[in-house]
Amino acid sequence: MSSLVNRQIVLNAHPVGAPVDTDFALVEGPVPAPGDGELLVRTIYLSLDPYMRGRMNPGPSYAKGVDVGDVMTGQTVGQVVTSNHGGFAEGEFVLSANGWQEYAVSDGQGVRKLAPTVAPISTAVGVLGMPGMTAYVGLLDVGALKDGDRVVVSAASGAVGAVVGQIAKIKGCHVVGVAGAQKKCDYVTGELGFDACVSHYSDTLDEDLRAVCPDGIDLYFDNVGGKVFEAVVPLLNDFARMPVCGRIANYNMTELPAGPNEVPKLMGLVLVRRLMIRGFIVFDHVTRQPDFIRDVGGWIRSGELKYREDIVEGFENAVGAFQGLLRGENFGKLLVRVSDDPTRQE
Amino acid sequence: MSSLVNRQIVLNAHPVGAPVDTDFALVEGPVPAPGDGELLVRTIYLSLDPYMRGRMNPGPSYAKGVDVGDVMTGQTVGQVVTSNHGGFAEGEFVLSANGWQEYAVSDGQGVRKLAPTVAPISTAVGVLGMPGMTAYVGLLDVGALKDGDRVVVSAASGAVGAVVGQIAKIKGCHVVGVAGAQKKCDYVTGELGFDACVSHYSDTLDEDLRAVCPDGIDLYFDNVGGKVFEAVVPLLNDFARMPVCGRIANYNMTELPAGPNEVPKLMGLVLVRRLMIRGFIVFDHVTRQPDFIRDVGGWIRSGELKYREDIVEGFENAVGAFQGLLRGENFGKLLVRVSDDPTRQE
Repeated sequence: MSSLVNRQIVLNAHPVGAPVDTDFALVEGPVPAPGDGELLVRTIYLSLDPYMRGRMNPGPSYAKGVDVGDVMTGQTVGQVVTSNHGGFAEGEFVLSANGWQEYAVSDGQGVRKLAPTVAPISTAVGVLGMPGMTAYVGLLDVGALKDGDRVVVSAASGAVGAVVGQIAKIKGCHVVGVAGAQKKCDYVTGELGFDACVSHYSDTLDEDLRAVCPDGIDLYFDNVGGKVFEAVVPLLNDFARMPVCGRIANYNMTELPAGPNEVPKLMGLVLVRRLMIRGFIVFDHVTRQPDFIRDVGGWIRSGELKYREDIVEGFENAVGAFQGLLRGENFGKLLVRVSDDPTRQE
Repeated sequence: MSSLVNRQIVLNAHPVGAPVDTDFALVEGPVPAPGDGELLVRTIYLSLDPYMRGRMNPGPSYAKGVDVGDVMTGQTVGQVVTSNHGGFAEGEFVLSANGWQEYAVSDGQGVRKLAPTVAPISTAVGVLGMPGMTAYVGLLDVGALKDGDRVVVSAASGAVGAVVGQIAKIKGCHVVGVAGAQKKCDYVTGELGFDACVSHYSDTLDEDLRAVCPDGIDLYFDNVGGKVFEAVVPLLNDFARMPVCGRIANYNMTELPAGPNEVPKLMGLVLVRRLMIRGFIVFDHVTRQPDFIRDVGGWIRSGELKYREDIVEGFENAVGAFQGLLRGENFGKLLVRVSDDPTRQE
């Protein structure tokens, strides 16, 4: 074992608004020893995802939150260091939810083996993992994508948005992305093949979006909320569908925006335009996992679907990377390389 | 012909807020003469429905609005006075959309014959017509009613709500109604068999509703919006569905309510609880007409489904009746008896 110390990042305080450094604490302890039927896993990649901000809040949500003093939750790609578990051997690569720490002991529950020869192990928390599947089920099942749909997706260069838009393109739709920085917009249209991309930094977002959606919007994949949502709503066509999987724009909100209360207007539009708005969480759609792996895996192999990773080096940089994620500073699926990835030649 | 005068009620001004008497005008003209291929129909029943308030507004909606000077739109049950149309004979009863007038000429388009021996002709604009079918498709198709659902329906004694709740009861669900006056609540529980009914006049509506929905709400059939919607939302369970077919509480709204803007809160709940909110208009579901007639017709014949009509006598009272409808003063499906119904023995 290369280290006898296990570094962990724990929640130090429930954030008010944007998480600050002191909301987290880096603690050190001994590397735990696996008991009978257990395995010890070394974290290689820690996945950083917007939903984690929600988990930092007190009070009920769709998943248990992180209490003060708890290790921050998160999906991880790792390697088995020691195994007393019949199902796992030393050296195997695994997907698990070990959270923000360098080592963790597991009883094997929910741990999935990864085959580095099939796909880069990092993709198990990205394009072939939870974000990719969120895109897949959100677009096809919740959003019921139809031929010829005019699709808009927010956070278009991100882990979810990039997959949403590319699947919609593969399915023959007109696709507009919304992203932040110009380089992201260029990537979305240039590399990913979206028909257009507008920046939410623009002072004229509403008009910019209208200009690239001359026939309105049939499907808005909402993974940010906020002003992109507001710019989209007036452009929704009759029978438009809005799968909702994230509200990153609101996660740091400490109070509701000033009035008037726009709910009656939104609900009036829901009626008049027969809109469908539906929230979803990828974990409710696990039965679609084989279809997802078959389809998205196939599109990756054929080159029809591209992905981009934003890998931050060093466990100690996780907090800063996560804060940057909430500000939209990452470019592609955000990962922290916690330790060496022996499968990667660079 | 018993009268040479055709009285019509036309839109005199687009209302601001609640429609006042001077927003309408009663005009008289000659009874029109049917040309070749046309028929003249005498109105027996004029259906008054909340959606008409929306049609009185200028600007686009899901259906063409009424312009100033136009006869108010509306479905009518009538009798053929004269026919130059091969498909219709003098004396036949028909469903058409002749609007707020005593006579109208038609080319037969969209006119449906009614068989008084099968069901009272008035039901063609009520329990076996558009309101009943709104309930049927909204609950079963849009709302995807499931066994054991805990259902809440607003305007529970009304033309739509009463059918929603009774179908849900037939399907074995727990059903709570929201109505206004105590006599309506008593009718909903006593006659229609809902499990409970609360009054939206109560100062403690939120608590009253919570008390009769101890296990939350799986399906809210929203045909009013406003404070009932607000009281329901916090009680929605994970995966709850909300078919939205009417916003009567908002129709007279001249400006949005004061802030804060609750949209981010609503959308946050949509995500966390994986809610489905979907607007619908019955006309988009015409393919379900045969199923609707078979099922609801059958339940009426078996006595499982009851209906109540609130018949106002006299065409000249249509405006007052409509104003009362918007205030919730009707008790059951609201009709105006414009002329004698020869099929009715009372």
